[in-house]
Parts: sequence; structure tokens; C-alpha cells
Amino acid sequence: MAEAEEVKHFGVRGSPLSLRVDIALRLKGVKSKFCEEDLQNKSPLLIKYNPVHKKVPVLVHNEKPIAESLVILEYIDETWKHQGLPILPQDPYQRANARFWASFIDEKCSPAICKAYWEIEGHEKAMEEACELLQSLENELKDNKFFGGETIGFVDMAASFIGYWLRPIQEAVGVEVLTKEKCPKLYDWCDEFVSHSVVKEVLPPNKETLIAFFLGRCESTKLLAK
Amino acid sequence: MAEAEEVKHFGVRGSPLSLRVDIALRLKGVKSKFCEEDLQNKSPLLIKYNPVHKKVPVLVHNEKPIAESLVILEYIDETWKHQGLPILPQDPYQRANARFWASFIDEKCSPAICKAYWEIEGHEKAMEEACELLQSLENELKDNKFFGGETIGFVDMAASFIGYWLRPIQEAVGVEVLTKEKCPKLYDWCDEFVSHSVVKEVLPPNKETLIAFFLGRCESTKLLAK
Repeated sequence: MAEAEEVKHFGVRGSPLSLRVDIALRLKGVKSKFCEEDLQNKSPLLIKYNPVHKKVPVLVHNEKPIAESLVILEYIDETWKHQGLPILPQDPYQRANARFWASFIDEKCSPAICKAYWEIEGHEKAMEEACELLQSLENELKDNKFFGGETIGFVDMAASFIGYWLRPIQEAVGVEVLTKEKCPKLYDWCDEFVSHSVVKEVLPPNKETLIAFFLGRCESTKLLAK
Repeated sequence: MAEAEEVKHFGVRGSPLSLRVDIALRLKGVKSKFCEEDLQNKSPLLIKYNPVHKKVPVLVHNEKPIAESLVILEYIDETWKHQGLPILPQDPYQRANARFWASFIDEKCSPAICKAYWEIEGHEKAMEEACELLQSLENELKDNKFFGGETIGFVDMAASFIGYWLRPIQEAVGVEVLTKEKCPKLYDWCDEFVSHSVVKEVLPPNKETLIAFFLGRCESTKLLAK
């Protein structure tokens, strides 16, 4: 790539979706400028770059905007193909598998977890559904350290909310959807995830503030439900 | 690819999601066996191959199952890379754009159109939202014949419901979300889509039965809402 290239990430430090992008950029060794957005008062640039959804994260590469976190991850993987570590596996079947599970997290797990925390009516059923979905993820981990195998990949990044936020939120709220008893591998994966050298470098600081922020956002805007 | 390879498509002839897969296979010149599913009485094979969602379409390539229609399209494009026509463009930015719009169709347009037809309370608002989303698609067509440019691609396949079902459904029900006045390009694109040589070959027969089938399914199971 040309040296003059410019990469900007319009995001929010407390957002699991922004964390996905940060991990991918760091994994590829791509230098970028983080442009913090205030979701209560979105910048004209964010609206300009993502006029359809008006949401973070948006990656702007040499003035070309890319929106939607999973789309951004694939873009990063393809654009900086020959540097850093791969995000998706090379084999088409393994790639399909990774895309399947990432989409499962976004379309099933995250909304179900949100529901389990905020649904008053039908709370028990929502809890049960969230646990069941996490069990599917547990099975998918098999005996691997990460969803990506020996190192983190597409599905690990997609699951960053579960990896970094879920257990502290559970402790803070006192409602558990992910337990060591029912999902021992996924539970341990959270520890592996936050300890990964690349993830550690980009984790947002001050977990407590973030949890409070997240609880507020999820309640009012269903941040995780797409 | 080895000659002995076996490709099966577990689908439903009336499903827009199955049509996506049929178009992609035909575009690549991949021979496959269509295994018709009865959604009221799903086959043990479908449950075995897609235990998480238990939904069509599923592609089974040499006994390896791939679920979720957009994931299947990418798999077909990558596996039979050097035969037939490409499904996704080659350039990473154009690929990101295609993925963005395909996901926009699944996550925004299709549920909104469904809502516009079945939401009794707030019907006006749902209609307005569906029209607005279709307007975004209209703008994305620009001056191209297809979303893929001169020929069909990923977004055209993703939009197969709009291309083949929407206008006949509108006529049958008498409720219009896509009009020639408001979205002239998208309206004409529907004609281009169903006239495309590859699409024509795989379009399910007997439109009237399909519309009735679709109306029934959408109402009871929200087929299009993922």
C-alpha cells in the first residue's frame, strides 16, 4: 500500500463493535486515527460517511467509507492481505463457517443476551434462550483455544462483547447467562480473549465506567440488536 | 475441482433465499441436486445439516454443509472461483459495498416490507419506512443496469425477493411500497432481473401459487425477517 494512505476509525471507545475494528487493525499492523463519536450528538462526518445507518463503527480509508463492523473486518483482511495475521481462514469452507458463526452472534446471541437483561415479561424464557445460544458457541469452540484455532480470528472478534463485557456485566447485575458449569470452554475463552497480546493493547480502559455506559445504552437503544 | 464432487441444495422452490443459491450455482455452472424441503415437516437431513437454525437454504458440498444464503453465495464464489461469472467484485472496496447492501436488504428492507404488509397497527409508518429503505436501494443502483454493474452479482441475488416477488405481490394485495414514480430505476431493475438469462432459467414456475404461498408463510413465520 502507498505510504500516504490514511485510515480513520469513527467509533466509540466503549462499543464492542468498535473493539472488533480496533483488534483487526492492530492484528494487521495498520496505523489508524481513532475519531471518537458522541452518540448523543453524532458528528456531521459520521452522518456523511454512513448516511444509511448513521452508526459506528465506520472505517474511512483514503476518504472511502466502509460501514458495518463485519463488513469492515473483511475489508481489512482483503486490503492488507499480505501483512500481519489473517482474520479469516484461507479455506472456503472454513471461511463460510467463520461467517456463519459471526452472523449467528450478531443475529441471535447478542439480541438474546440483551433481552435476557432487559426483558421483564418473559425474563425466564429469554434467559433460557440466551443460555442455549451460548451453548451452541461453546460447542463450536471444540478443543480450540480460540474460535480461530491457535490465534484469534473473525469469530473471536465478532464475539468481543461476550469476551470482554459479558462476565463483568453478569457480576455487576447478578444475572448469569454464561456460567463456568454450563459453558466451561466459552467461559475460559473469555480469559484467553482478554489476555491475547493484540486484544490487550486495544481493550478500552476503565471497565466499570464502560459497564455502566453499556447498561444505559443497551436499555435505551438496544445497541446490540442490529 | 474433482469430477466426483457432489453438490446438493436443500431448499424450497418458492423461497427467495433458495433462489439466491440457485442463481449463484447456475452463474458458476455448478451442477447440483435440488432437495425440496417441506417446511411443515422438515427432513432429518435438513436438521442434521443445519442444526442451529433448521432452515433452508443449505448447500451440501461433498457432505460438508453450509447454511445461511449469503454465506452460501460467498462459498460458491470462492470454491468455483475460476469458472463461470464472478458473484462478488474483485476490488476490496467494491466487495465491502456489495456486502453492505446485501446485509441492508436482509436486515432492513425485507423485515420492513413484511411489516408494511402485515402490520395493522402503525401500517402507515411501516409503509413509509419500507418506501424510504427502497429509496436507498434505488440510489445505490445509480445508472447501472444491475447492482453488479453490467451483469448480476451478490446484491442482485440478495434482492431476489424484490426482483421477482414484490411487484406481483403488490398487484395481488393492492398495497404498493415500490412504485415506478418514486423508484423508477429499482422498478425497471425488477424487469431486468427476471429477464436475465441465468435468472430466467431458475425462476420458480407458477407465480400465482408462489405468491399465495409466500403470503401465508410470511404472515405465520415472518419468513423474511431473519
